[in-house]
Amino acid sequence: MCSPRIVRAAHEAADNPRLSRRAWLGAASAGALAAVSAIGSVQAAPNISGRVVDLTHVLTPELPVWPGNPPFISVPVAWHDHGGFGQNALAFWEHTGTHIDAPLHRMRDAAAVDRIPADDLVAPLVVVDIESKASTDPDAVLTISDIEEWESRHGRLPDRAFIAMHSGWEHRLATPGAFLNLDAEGRPHAPGFDTAAAEFLVTERSIVGAGVDTLSLDPGASREFGAHTAFLGAGRYGVEMLANLARVPVSGATVVIGAPKHAGGTGGPCRVLALT
Amino acid sequence: MCSPRIVRAAHEAADNPRLSRRAWLGAASAGALAAVSAIGSVQAAPNISGRVVDLTHVLTPELPVWPGNPPFISVPVAWHDHGGFGQNALAFWEHTGTHIDAPLHRMRDAAAVDRIPADDLVAPLVVVDIESKASTDPDAVLTISDIEEWESRHGRLPDRAFIAMHSGWEHRLATPGAFLNLDAEGRPHAPGFDTAAAEFLVTERSIVGAGVDTLSLDPGASREFGAHTAFLGAGRYGVEMLANLARVPVSGATVVIGAPKHAGGTGGPCRVLALT
Repeated sequence: MCSPRIVRAAHEAADNPRLSRRAWLGAASAGALAAVSAIGSVQAAPNISGRVVDLTHVLTPELPVWPGNPPFISVPVAWHDHGGFGQNALAFWEHTGTHIDAPLHRMRDAAAVDRIPADDLVAPLVVVDIESKASTDPDAVLTISDIEEWESRHGRLPDRAFIAMHSGWEHRLATPGAFLNLDAEGRPHAPGFDTAAAEFLVTERSIVGAGVDTLSLDPGASREFGAHTAFLGAGRYGVEMLANLARVPVSGATVVIGAPKHAGGTGGPCRVLALT
Repeated sequence: MCSPRIVRAAHEAADNPRLSRRAWLGAASAGALAAVSAIGSVQAAPNISGRVVDLTHVLTPELPVWPGNPPFISVPVAWHDHGGFGQNALAFWEHTGTHIDAPLHRMRDAAAVDRIPADDLVAPLVVVDIESKASTDPDAVLTISDIEEWESRHGRLPDRAFIAMHSGWEHRLATPGAFLNLDAEGRPHAPGFDTAAAEFLVTERSIVGAGVDTLSLDPGASREFGAHTAFLGAGRYGVEMLANLARVPVSGATVVIGAPKHAGGTGGPCRVLALT
């Protein structure tokens, strides 16, 4: 039941104290995955390296926001010369930067961001890669077939997983206008979850939430927002504008969603860390 | 090397699929602690239950803030009747609610909140309880002796630990004015780290950060802010206004600090989750 990695990591750490933290994280993940494998939730060999991978973009006024939303604002209100401490006043709309969508964002009377159970914010991370089709089709969607292909390689989605769409869209942040990718009518074109796939994930599988590396759970040009309705309507949360999904294994990592906890919030910027 | 808990948790999960997530988390912690024990960082028997404990207060306009700082503000800017989505505009100063102090908060030219390494945001959690003396002395401080007493029971502080002062101060949130506890001159009185203890932690031990369940790393009445200077001046971070420290073991849990990541920030509200 116990991965040899735990033993090896501990020995390596004992030999070299500077390795102890990485070994400790690696052992934690190995221990988790050994147990998960034993109960059949993860069938593929995990990719364990003990890294913390940051799936969060740096939040700046320049970061693209959904059309019509204002940019993030930070203004100094205290500085070291006067009183010995620096501090900024911040102002922004909730759905800015790498951020969470609480069920309340889409569904009146649904759970606000402070009511999402803490248990749901720590989850097995599943990454479904659709970069190939997204590179040629900005309206590409993650389909049930993509999920089935992932499962054919890595086994059934773990219970209570967080599933992330990796479209490679963040590369477009380097080119002004390319991330939003507005058409002549001002409508964004970017990949997202197909509505049928979102419905499949909340009915046929057990997920706590879903994420994308674009600005919307739905494809950008959607007028119906079917993926938002499916995920948030089922009480799951979304995370939009994830970063660095190419740097985590597609199976076997654990994600921690550092969601904001303001009363009645529909969402907000969040720190997303993957423990690999 | 391998805790029997991993085996037991996996068997329990196999018997009852609804237990699988808790068993999985418990096994992860058990795996981590088996390895840590093996390399000598944690000597006490860990308290493993597989819970995620939320160390974050709900952020509201009513939550006390440092004297002179404004309250948290949230204003609706979109609602479901118009466009199908709800969203709020938020405005607040960075050091509001359960929040992180980046080194830049105290030290000009030091690391901003977006430059704290992600590796430092996942750490062994150490809780030092000073509730007994804080209950009779609002100016009580966490001293080197308190750390030594913790170590006499639980072993040397783990490398790269996050050390939290538990003074029990959050009980005072129920009584208006009691949390800030201002004297006749308007100065707050609440527990914090003794400066010598903070200096000890950054020179004689290896910590990534320190936290308190009060509004300041320093005792509230401090004019010198020696604990802030010691921690932040050494490149470590602080977390203030932690919640629920009575609900986590004093040794053996892992804490994840969901720090905000805005460019140049001196800190900000953060989600703090303990994996026990």
